[in-house]
Amino acid sequence: MSEQSEKKSLNSGVIRNNRVMSDGRTIRYYDTQGQSREVADRREKEDQPGIGELRLDALVNEWVAIAPHRQGRVFLPPKELCPLCPTNSELLTEIPEPTYEVVVFDNRSPSLRPPLDGWSLPVLQGPETSEPTSAGKCEVVCYAPDHGSSFADLSQRQVRTVLEAWRDRTSELSLLPFIEQVFPFENRGEEVGVTLSHPHGQIYAYSFLPPRVEKMLAAAKEHKARTGRTLFDDLIAREITDEVRIVAQNEHWLAFVPYAARYPFEIHVAPRTPVADLTELSSEVCDAFPEIALEVTRRLDGVFGIPMAYIAAWHQAPVRQGRDLLRLHWQITSVRRAPGKLKYLAGSESAMGAFIMDMKPEQSAGQLREVVLGDRNNL
Amino acid sequence: MSEQSEKKSLNSGVIRNNRVMSDGRTIRYYDTQGQSREVADRREKEDQPGIGELRLDALVNEWVAIAPHRQGRVFLPPKELCPLCPTNSELLTEIPEPTYEVVVFDNRSPSLRPPLDGWSLPVLQGPETSEPTSAGKCEVVCYAPDHGSSFADLSQRQVRTVLEAWRDRTSELSLLPFIEQVFPFENRGEEVGVTLSHPHGQIYAYSFLPPRVEKMLAAAKEHKARTGRTLFDDLIAREITDEVRIVAQNEHWLAFVPYAARYPFEIHVAPRTPVADLTELSSEVCDAFPEIALEVTRRLDGVFGIPMAYIAAWHQAPVRQGRDLLRLHWQITSVRRAPGKLKYLAGSESAMGAFIMDMKPEQSAGQLREVVLGDRNNL
Repeated sequence: MSEQSEKKSLNSGVIRNNRVMSDGRTIRYYDTQGQSREVADRREKEDQPGIGELRLDALVNEWVAIAPHRQGRVFLPPKELCPLCPTNSELLTEIPEPTYEVVVFDNRSPSLRPPLDGWSLPVLQGPETSEPTSAGKCEVVCYAPDHGSSFADLSQRQVRTVLEAWRDRTSELSLLPFIEQVFPFENRGEEVGVTLSHPHGQIYAYSFLPPRVEKMLAAAKEHKARTGRTLFDDLIAREITDEVRIVAQNEHWLAFVPYAARYPFEIHVAPRTPVADLTELSSEVCDAFPEIALEVTRRLDGVFGIPMAYIAAWHQAPVRQGRDLLRLHWQITSVRRAPGKLKYLAGSESAMGAFIMDMKPEQSAGQLREVVLGDRNNL
Repeated sequence: MSEQSEKKSLNSGVIRNNRVMSDGRTIRYYDTQGQSREVADRREKEDQPGIGELRLDALVNEWVAIAPHRQGRVFLPPKELCPLCPTNSELLTEIPEPTYEVVVFDNRSPSLRPPLDGWSLPVLQGPETSEPTSAGKCEVVCYAPDHGSSFADLSQRQVRTVLEAWRDRTSELSLLPFIEQVFPFENRGEEVGVTLSHPHGQIYAYSFLPPRVEKMLAAAKEHKARTGRTLFDDLIAREITDEVRIVAQNEHWLAFVPYAARYPFEIHVAPRTPVADLTELSSEVCDAFPEIALEVTRRLDGVFGIPMAYIAAWHQAPVRQGRDLLRLHWQITSVRRAPGKLKYLAGSESAMGAFIMDMKPEQSAGQLREVVLGDRNNL
């Protein structure tokens, strides 16, 4: 397969080298120093897990992916057994090279994986629906080789390379005929269920429109029909006017606690010039991202003086629809409401979908602005 | 106010006595032994917290209730300071009497509360929406006076009284002009954010249709239009035919892991004769509920031999619409997937609404059926 040995020049001086892992998965190295990436994966060949099922939850017309092969996945291994560290003399890890900058590889226990043969989008059709396979793709994005690091510890150069990797994967995954939505995200902290503490994120590429995207699309359509305008652009305009919830900004990006935040600490980061997805960002806008991304994640860590558990989620327009209706933005949500207290999605949120927020968004924006940023690296 | 001194005979020999608390809230005693409930609340009068706001999350067209006065609420107090125990010589609690069977009282830190003056349902209308108040009502349901007990430890008689209390509150809350949905539920276990360990549940009565109910209503409408049938009835018929996911049953109730379960342990309990809400259950069906409710919650505790953290949620038809489309059922969902592991709502579930299940529903149904029920009281 051509993808598996390809070498490609991306923006910002990033070169991508693809290599095949011993079980046939692909690993992609994103480098800025012209490194050659020739070290082979010396592990035994391992059978890939089977593909799961998609089942329709007819009560709400939503797909649920069933992936029973994930039950046995690695759970918080000690540092010396971390599969996301570079390979060393003691351990053959997921990354054969002795070091790396940024890598993206196919997930070993994927919730979603490419279909074995033909594929057609399943139709939502009530309780008698047959079970399509849970097609899609799951990838792991390692931000840095240092096990003890985190996104907020990266240099601007490293964040720029991570951004380039996200852009590259969005671009390639969007070409797959069975992909409808590309979703790069990071779960950070054991409080949100992280099973590997090495600094990394993931990419899920879905073969169906995820329920929340479907809902965003419906809201944007309705707004366009009623006003002729794009909903997200109006929301940004409101945040700029209200001003009180803005947390950080530069020439190309705006970071704010949204007017109707659902989590104690929730920040949305959006480019000032609206685009549909990561691939549409201009070089200038990309180059201005590391600064705001680092400021925002460091402010989050600073609120309670401990690493903030969060989910950082890239919302992009779907691959094949709503390209003019939905806008790229990054939603970072944290469940920590006080040093010893978390917000849980309990009865109201979980069973009714009705969120209760214990904190005014203006208050959390104020707390985030007041954080004094030390000289953690140089911002 | 007449509600506050009323004495009322309910079904199954339950008598309800209403009393006014010192700050004006109402407490309702549900008793089976003809007790008189005359003990006054001797605490200092306390100002009630202000009413919060409802804010529209325009991105998905959903209301978020902002209740900043809840930040300071009591958090896992030690047993001797439990506000849900009966009042004793050491502590004046929420319940003035020295003992009780089942009580329901107005929540001291409500997320939603009755509006001070006129009320009209807010209209969803994009980012320029003004802020209506978060009208509604929040109540606390104490299942038993014993602090160390839990729902699964109750006797059948106690569960029958709790059911009568839920029915009574659903009936009365449905009469309030600002209520659209009545939602009795229980969060159990610190893993789902419980802040008081005394066995209790809650009732949230919303002034708007909660997002998940809205979605259920849309799915049921679509199914009715397409087939002429009621969606939930078809789903029950499918579970009876498939059989493999049934966990418990008796003449009037069926308990099953749903075909598209979202949580490692998820059980839906439904009456065989469909009804819209708790008030429509016949006496016979009510009398058959304690048996299945106790079997199901004890099976959950038995899976790992430790009290199972769960959210137990009564889904009822809304007060004013969809009465012929949505059916009463009880959804119990647990996040525990193994003794030391929880399922978290991370990136895919939280930001995309796309659930990934690590376990086949048929497998968890099997595990639940295999639990050997000891003689914890007498089932």
